[in-house]
Amino acid sequence: MSVAPDWIAVDWGTSNVRAWAMSASGTVLAEAHSADGMGTLARDQFEGAFRRLTDGWVAAPAIACGMVGARQGWAEAPYRQIPCVPLGEEAARPESDLDVRIIPGLKQRTPPDVMRGEETQIAGFQALNPNWDGVICLPGTHTKWVQVSAGEVVSFQTFLTGDLFAALTEHTVLKHSTAGEMSDEESFRAAVHDALAKPERLAARLFGIRADHLLNDIPQDSLRARLSGLLIGAELAAARPYWLGQQIAVIGAPGLAKLYMMALAAQGVPAIEANAERMTLAGLKRARECMKLPT
Amino acid sequence: MSVAPDWIAVDWGTSNVRAWAMSASGTVLAEAHSADGMGTLARDQFEGAFRRLTDGWVAAPAIACGMVGARQGWAEAPYRQIPCVPLGEEAARPESDLDVRIIPGLKQRTPPDVMRGEETQIAGFQALNPNWDGVICLPGTHTKWVQVSAGEVVSFQTFLTGDLFAALTEHTVLKHSTAGEMSDEESFRAAVHDALAKPERLAARLFGIRADHLLNDIPQDSLRARLSGLLIGAELAAARPYWLGQQIAVIGAPGLAKLYMMALAAQGVPAIEANAERMTLAGLKRARECMKLPT
Repeated sequence: MSVAPDWIAVDWGTSNVRAWAMSASGTVLAEAHSADGMGTLARDQFEGAFRRLTDGWVAAPAIACGMVGARQGWAEAPYRQIPCVPLGEEAARPESDLDVRIIPGLKQRTPPDVMRGEETQIAGFQALNPNWDGVICLPGTHTKWVQVSAGEVVSFQTFLTGDLFAALTEHTVLKHSTAGEMSDEESFRAAVHDALAKPERLAARLFGIRADHLLNDIPQDSLRARLSGLLIGAELAAARPYWLGQQIAVIGAPGLAKLYMMALAAQGVPAIEANAERMTLAGLKRARECMKLPT
Repeated sequence: MSVAPDWIAVDWGTSNVRAWAMSASGTVLAEAHSADGMGTLARDQFEGAFRRLTDGWVAAPAIACGMVGARQGWAEAPYRQIPCVPLGEEAARPESDLDVRIIPGLKQRTPPDVMRGEETQIAGFQALNPNWDGVICLPGTHTKWVQVSAGEVVSFQTFLTGDLFAALTEHTVLKHSTAGEMSDEESFRAAVHDALAKPERLAARLFGIRADHLLNDIPQDSLRARLSGLLIGAELAAARPYWLGQQIAVIGAPGLAKLYMMALAAQGVPAIEANAERMTLAGLKRARECMKLPT
């Protein structure tokens, strides 16, 4: 049975791509995903990847967010400059017989910073929580802290925390001491506290993980939790102006969002959690309204 | 013409191995090196690697330092516990027809820390600088700060700085923004100062490197110098108790040692520089005396 969407919503990141076949009323008719991330494709390979992904679906206009709009993506969607609402009318159109519109990311001049994809999740969160003011934390490979006021993104700051955690656990000597699951919440919380209390000691803590494994046989899952706590704690120390005395919403994949919720709760900061995929889809629906696609 | 050493000095690290054919009086008769580091060899492959490395040399007793004495090495040389002089009589003997003695590393109970190889460089420095008291900084993949008093190692602290720099520049998004040489000393010094003045902001600085590249077209060699300065500055912030008001000796490969000398000079800390390879060889000679090898 073929799928006949009114439009197609696409979340196209560096490592993965996900598409939803949507009805006009916003119902998901079908879903598809693949590992054809932006990072794996040359410019002339995006159209083929899109056609493979939506194979069996009747052609329809598509709206895409994420790294697909980067300079190395399908078509560059130049950053919009904050302060501004997260989504506007602007879109990049790849050269193609397909009707594809790519949502631009946002940029901040001082201090320099950029986002691509998170603006769509923020717009989705706003659509589901009208008139919400506060700070949105979007944990991921590159975690964003975003101050939202009167519907506009007014400032943001990106942290390399997820990327750094992966590099440390896969490409340094710590890989021999941080295998396994991150189940030790006590170690995590203690490390967050340590990093926040003495941020200047961070560099001294990292090799300590290796030494504690060699000399004291501390289990690797505890050491993994400690490393995660140290890095998230260091992020919280640097992001303090964003969360101190603020209303926080954490938008992320469930496991990672839970860590940030725990870390914030330990500082007495109230936060609500929202599912990243749901926010992305809500944001893509909102983008369709902004761009006034034919319905 | 064959080489007939009285003994063989060996520096066997994780990624490389270097051997010197030595006369009884301490003259280097020949030198060899290869990429047969400890990390690339199973236990039963060390002897073959050693024989290949010293091919053409007449067999002689050998003394080795470094990761060759780790649990995954040729033979485990259990750590000696500080406070102690850097070299003792202890040595591990691999099962082999060859006469090979491996120098043990040092361990510290609180906070937990370990070294393998640096103890030999420290002993070499002491042999060349009798009665020297102070702090020795040994920059490398895992930089060590070592407090030496009355000939003994009394405390030390390891930093992951080199390993972390490599992981960030090769395995995170920063790899696209930090190519090239590290020639921009001004950027380096400014970043050291920034990290020392505001260590709690470190996590916020890392993605800024990427953003400054994307938005402001800052040259990659400047950004590479900035990253190096941020990490060495964070290390200095955490190592402050080691260098504040102390006499410092920096033992390292010339390029890396120079960065530490610059960073310390900017804090008004007097430091002398010593060549790592020379210290290793002097330390291996000292080890031969300690172990009372037949002469």
